Amino acid sequence: MNLLLINPNTSEVMTAGIAAAARAVAFPGTTVHATQPTFGPRSIEGHYDEAIAAAGVAEQVRLHGAGADAVVIACFGDPGLDAAREATSAPVIGIAEAAFHAASFLATGFSVVTTMTRTCVIAEHLVHRYGFERRCRGIHGTDIPVLALEDGGAGCVDQIEAAAREALARDRSGAIVLGCAGMAALCATLSARLGVPVIDGVAAAVKFAEGLVALGLRTSAHGDYARPLPKVYDGWAAPLGW
Amino acid sequence: MNLLLINPNTSEVMTAGIAAAARAVAFPGTTVHATQPTFGPRSIEGHYDEAIAAAGVAEQVRLHGAGADAVVIACFGDPGLDAAREATSAPVIGIAEAAFHAASFLATGFSVVTTMTRTCVIAEHLVHRYGFERRCRGIHGTDIPVLALEDGGAGCVDQIEAAAREALARDRSGAIVLGCAGMAALCATLSARLGVPVIDGVAAAVKFAEGLVALGLRTSAHGDYARPLPKVYDGWAAPLGW
Amino acid sequence: MNLLLINPNTSEVMTAGIAAAARAVAFPGTTVHATQPTFGPRSIEGHYDEAIAAAGVAEQVRLHGAGADAVVIACFGDPGLDAAREATSAPVIGIAEAAFHAASFLATGFSVVTTMTRTCVIAEHLVHRYGFERRCRGIHGTDIPVLALEDGGAGCVDQIEAAAREALARDRSGAIVLGCAGMAALCATLSARLGVPVIDGVAAAVKFAEGLVALGLRTSAHGDYARPLPKVYDGWAAPLGW
Amino acid sequence: MNLLLINPNTSEVMTAGIAAAARAVAFPGTTVHATQPTFGPRSIEGHYDEAIAAAGVAEQVRLHGAGADAVVIACFGDPGLDAAREATSAPVIGIAEAAFHAASFLATGFSVVTTMTRTCVIAEHLVHRYGFERRCRGIHGTDIPVLALEDGGAGCVDQIEAAAREALARDRSGAIVLGCAGMAALCATLSARLGVPVIDGVAAAVKFAEGLVALGLRTSAHGDYARPLPKVYDGWAAPLGW
Amino acid sequence: MNLLLINPNTSEVMTAGIAAAARAVAFPGTTVHATQPTFGPRSIEGHYDEAIAAAGVAEQVRLHGAGADAVVIACFGDPGLDAAREATSAPVIGIAEAAFHAASFLATGFSVVTTMTRTCVIAEHLVHRYGFERRCRGIHGTDIPVLALEDGGAGCVDQIEAAAREALARDRSGAIVLGCAGMAALCATLSARLGVPVIDGVAAAVKFAEGLVALGLRTSAHGDYARPLPKVYDGWAAPLGW
Amino acid sequence: MNLLLINPNTSEVMTAGIAAAARAVAFPGTTVHATQPTFGPRSIEGHYDEAIAAAGVAEQVRLHGAGADAVVIACFGDPGLDAAREATSAPVIGIAEAAFHAASFLATGFSVVTTMTRTCVIAEHLVHRYGFERRCRGIHGTDIPVLALEDGGAGCVDQIEAAAREALARDRSGAIVLGCAGMAALCATLSARLGVPVIDGVAAAVKFAEGLVALGLRTSAHGDYARPLPKVYDGWAAPLGW
Repeated sequence: MNLLLINPNTSEVMTAGIAAAARAVAFPGTTVHATQPTFGPRSIEGHYDEAIAAAGVAEQVRLHGAGADAVVIACFGDPGLDAAREATSAPVIGIAEAAFHAASFLATGFSVVTTMTRTCVIAEHLVHRYGFERRCRGIHGTDIPVLALEDGGAGCVDQIEAAAREALARDRSGAIVLGCAGMAALCATLSARLGVPVIDGVAAAVKFAEGLVALGLRTSAHGDYARPLPKVYDGWAAPLGW
Repeated sequence: MNLLLINPNTSEVMTAGIAAAARAVAFPGTTVHATQPTFGPRSIEGHYDEAIAAAGVAEQVRLHGAGADAVVIACFGDPGLDAAREATSAPVIGIAEAAFHAASFLATGFSVVTTMTRTCVIAEHLVHRYGFERRCRGIHGTDIPVLALEDGGAGCVDQIEAAAREALARDRSGAIVLGCAGMAALCATLSARLGVPVIDGVAAAVKFAEGLVALGLRTSAHGDYARPLPKVYDGWAAPLGW
Repeated sequence: MNLLLINPNTSEVMTAGIAAAARAVAFPGTTVHATQPTFGPRSIEGHYDEAIAAAGVAEQVRLHGAGADAVVIACFGDPGLDAAREATSAPVIGIAEAAFHAASFLATGFSVVTTMTRTCVIAEHLVHRYGFERRCRGIHGTDIPVLALEDGGAGCVDQIEAAAREALARDRSGAIVLGCAGMAALCATLSARLGVPVIDGVAAAVKFAEGLVALGLRTSAHGDYARPLPKVYDGWAAPLGW
Repeated sequence: MNLLLINPNTSEVMTAGIAAAARAVAFPGTTVHATQPTFGPRSIEGHYDEAIAAAGVAEQVRLHGAGADAVVIACFGDPGLDAAREATSAPVIGIAEAAFHAASFLATGFSVVTTMTRTCVIAEHLVHRYGFERRCRGIHGTDIPVLALEDGGAGCVDQIEAAAREALARDRSGAIVLGCAGMAALCATLSARLGVPVIDGVAAAVKFAEGLVALGLRTSAHGDYARPLPKVYDGWAAPLGW
Repeated sequence: MNLLLINPNTSEVMTAGIAAAARAVAFPGTTVHATQPTFGPRSIEGHYDEAIAAAGVAEQVRLHGAGADAVVIACFGDPGLDAAREATSAPVIGIAEAAFHAASFLATGFSVVTTMTRTCVIAEHLVHRYGFERRCRGIHGTDIPVLALEDGGAGCVDQIEAAAREALARDRSGAIVLGCAGMAALCATLSARLGVPVIDGVAAAVKFAEGLVALGLRTSAHGDYARPLPKVYDGWAAPLGW
Repeated sequence: MNLLLINPNTSEVMTAGIAAAARAVAFPGTTVHATQPTFGPRSIEGHYDEAIAAAGVAEQVRLHGAGADAVVIACFGDPGLDAAREATSAPVIGIAEAAFHAASFLATGFSVVTTMTRTCVIAEHLVHRYGFERRCRGIHGTDIPVLALEDGGAGCVDQIEAAAREALARDRSGAIVLGCAGMAALCATLSARLGVPVIDGVAAAVKFAEGLVALGLRTSAHGDYARPLPKVYDGWAAPLGW
């Protein structure tokens, strides 16, 4: 199967890192095609960055979605998720939702450890919208800038571990969700150190996507995920219309 | 005061219509500056359209937000609302939230009558996110295309009235919220016919914005609405970075 | 327009203070008529006080509501709000709801700082009833007696500031709602000191009321806010029947 | 034990009827002292009526609460419940809450059949506030005026039965809650006809009150139900101060 | 009336203790028949123990339910509650739900103090399922093993008192719910020491059961609590089929 | 990997059918070991059946969990799910939760079509507990007995299709969840006929289990899913103790 892996920011280094994380867990028959928008922010650390990045996700699905068997959106805010589901009949999975779903299979409660504290509210909104408000017992910022994770985050692992330990104790949680695609490379280390399930959404999304494709399940085209209505798009977005 | 009124789609006819609706209710000291993105869909009738339009709202606030005392986002999905609040310290109000808040002052329960049924889920998500799930007793699609409202919607008024009457009876509601900025011109007619409060979000947003400005209240720059972090933006979005 | 401003307690000093706060923010065309019940508690610091005060609000709306274009109930528990909405077709706004709505336009989360800790539960019930349980991140008592605020609360400002600072940090909030009409005079000082939006419900209610009146919106008389049914009232309440 | 049974409206006929219903189920050692406010509406059919009646409940608890071992508030809106709990250390039970609690022991879901449709929203608010929103599957008005039940409601029983049957089918409910104290005398008849538990809140409240008293449990005086703070009350309410 | 009191674990000492607690509060006309499953864990301190114990409750109701006027399930997780309600038309009450309902009559918020911290999640699930998530302000483990309470828990009372005091302060609660049937004997002592209502679910359940029986109310046989469908049961459970 | 597939009822025919459904979708490297309790009901159609069956699941996990890499519980009520998670460190997935999670990736809303109407409340409780109350727009009983599905349900497919079509229209849903393991064989037919995603929980659970195992994720042993505490088990359950 062909998996379209979209990094919503424009950092090629991060795209490569996320692709590596995805390929490391993909089944042999899965080809990971990693991409990123042609425009937008180098990292996503707030609502404004995210709004532009969501349009970038829509662009990439519009351009490359036709050939994909599944799509993964590799930013913890799941930007453009609903848009992507309208734009392709392939299953589309965001890494935040994937991580939340995976954690729910493994513990009665989990905590999220993320980057900038200011983005906690984005995770809170997702938790609430997806219905995980009782499973998610805490969301914790570390104020590590996203791009500091570009090298795999090796320098940040102690800080993240400390935040995770405190979260486990204070939140009475049984698992940790990593709140940034850029933390994927740290997942094994943190899991070994913490002794609890540590969930990287990129890996979880890849496996869930493979599972859905194997079952022949596709995004519903009935109702609110029906293909976009035909209409004129203006400006740089002209090619994105239907 | 200067009110930046952003129509998130690229229909100039609709921008003009919304601007007229806003000016009709604005206080004499309010100058309405109506604008629209330089790119994106002519109308917003689904998640995909909305994702591009939200980036368009971010663009317009970035370009014109500095001189505004308040900003109104004139599409019922409130696209780009959080992004806009990061990008300016002026108060920013979406017309959906404005309509929901206004209706809550006037009735214990209200119903929304909107355009395409496929967009009802967008309104549902907003209702839930904003906390109006107990006030909002129903969301009803009429499957009137948004652009059919461009002329003020005169041809659609009977259809909307019928949907509103059914909603009032079935939902046990006391007020009607119009679920599209393009319905603004129909508000007075529908109000007269129905005999209950009929709320146009454009008008409500203008008045709430004027009120907040008069009180000297501005968007909080503390925490998650702090100004975007400085970073490189790529492609067409390069000028939008901070 | 004529604004009927009801102080639900019987402290004339507080009525005057609230009236001054309202007039300070009202548009020139707004005439503020401040009143208070002919009976009941001098201050409202619990459920029992509030039950009597709510009847007092009903009395005042019955006596003076006919000539009003809008009504504001100036106690943070919004006593008698639903009763008042049945008793007049003018829009009626409580200062707690007004403050919550205003704060929601300005921050993703806010904290309430109020007087007696024992009244926090009243605010909690309102937050929950109105649907602000996700926006309101904390309610904090200072145990300042309401009547200690009669002089404008100058002596209390440091204590309230300290509680607000702690709330902003602990609750990860972006705005402060003042939980007592008697704190209105402190709003500007606290806003300047704290550097975040500080919302006084009296001011917010006045502006929202002006906005609704300007739009010609009135309380719904359809359904559960229909005018009270005719019936005999006994005892001192005989004149209050319909 | 002495049970203070407060009818919040001023209909002596209804007070007598409610008292008879209470005495019919009370244990031999329970003395029922039935009372009603000295002022207020003859029946409670809306928010306005209820606001005055809640003050009447507060009055009666203030005057007679000292000698009571338990207090029951016999109107389905539970007016003045929190106020009464501050004003006496005896347990206080409202008939709506009693009925909801009782129904929760007997069925996974129940429906409420009440009088005026306009009062359904009052029951909705209670259901939501008390946390029965998943147990309560429907609230149905019959538009029977409250005073039509003064004679025991014999003429209304067919209409209420029909509404109950429809509710059981449509709501997939297993029990019926009678939404008015005036329906108490119909409970046995309806129960026999419907073949499901039919719950009269007056009877349920009496039994729960007896149970709490037998256990020596009293209203918490710690925190928000602590005795009212001492203060001046003005006008007719002067004797009600603490 | 005959009250079937089921201790879901197989500790005869604990059965005797719970029976004594029940008899101490039962009305003279109530005969308490205490029983325990013929199989399963000696104490219930987790999900696995509870799953076996719930089957034990079903067994006991199947064997002894026919002659009972009411059934009480005396373990704080309310194991087998829904099963028992299908298996008998007598009212069935769990001690957790009984305690939550009782506490709700006495305080706006309560805290639970229980045994093993690992069981807090069971109480959380019950609180949420029953709708007490706003009344229950905290659940606190003491890590006292259940069997350490077999002697009446005298050695544990100081530890439980300390946890309760901290809960009252931190949770802003007005009442304490004891989170284990084995704590029943400590209720009076803790109540005297703490000065707030302390609720033992065994006692509360007995009184609620007596009240329901006195009113002639029985579990609804309409819908989802209808008697189990006839079918073959295999293995040791063969006699349990219908 | 070794997948332990537990049919919670004792119907060998159904165990075989479920095993076939699981093997049909499993990856080549997955060995499905299908089992069923040694005791309990032949089908699960109510709370009582389910309570016994949950103990049966616990028994099977206790006996066979050690050698499993993952466990699937193949009854739509997810009986014994939490118990199983304590009793093995392998990931454990219930088919109801699996189906709900899968549907959430594919549609904004789904409907459940199940067997006996009396079991709808079990699905409702799961939906609510897992947090899918906004995704799940309806649960519909067909009153097909579970054992009528033993032959693959061919005779029932038209009835289920009709219920599904009505659900899609009335609930505004985009996907159908099959509410019984016995419907697994009908999934492809229904999917082809309905043209929307039709989700069989058995298949979904197998794929999610394979994904979690591939990632090396295991049930958290930290906190409330820690291994059961050592203790004596009595009667037939003696071998099940720890």
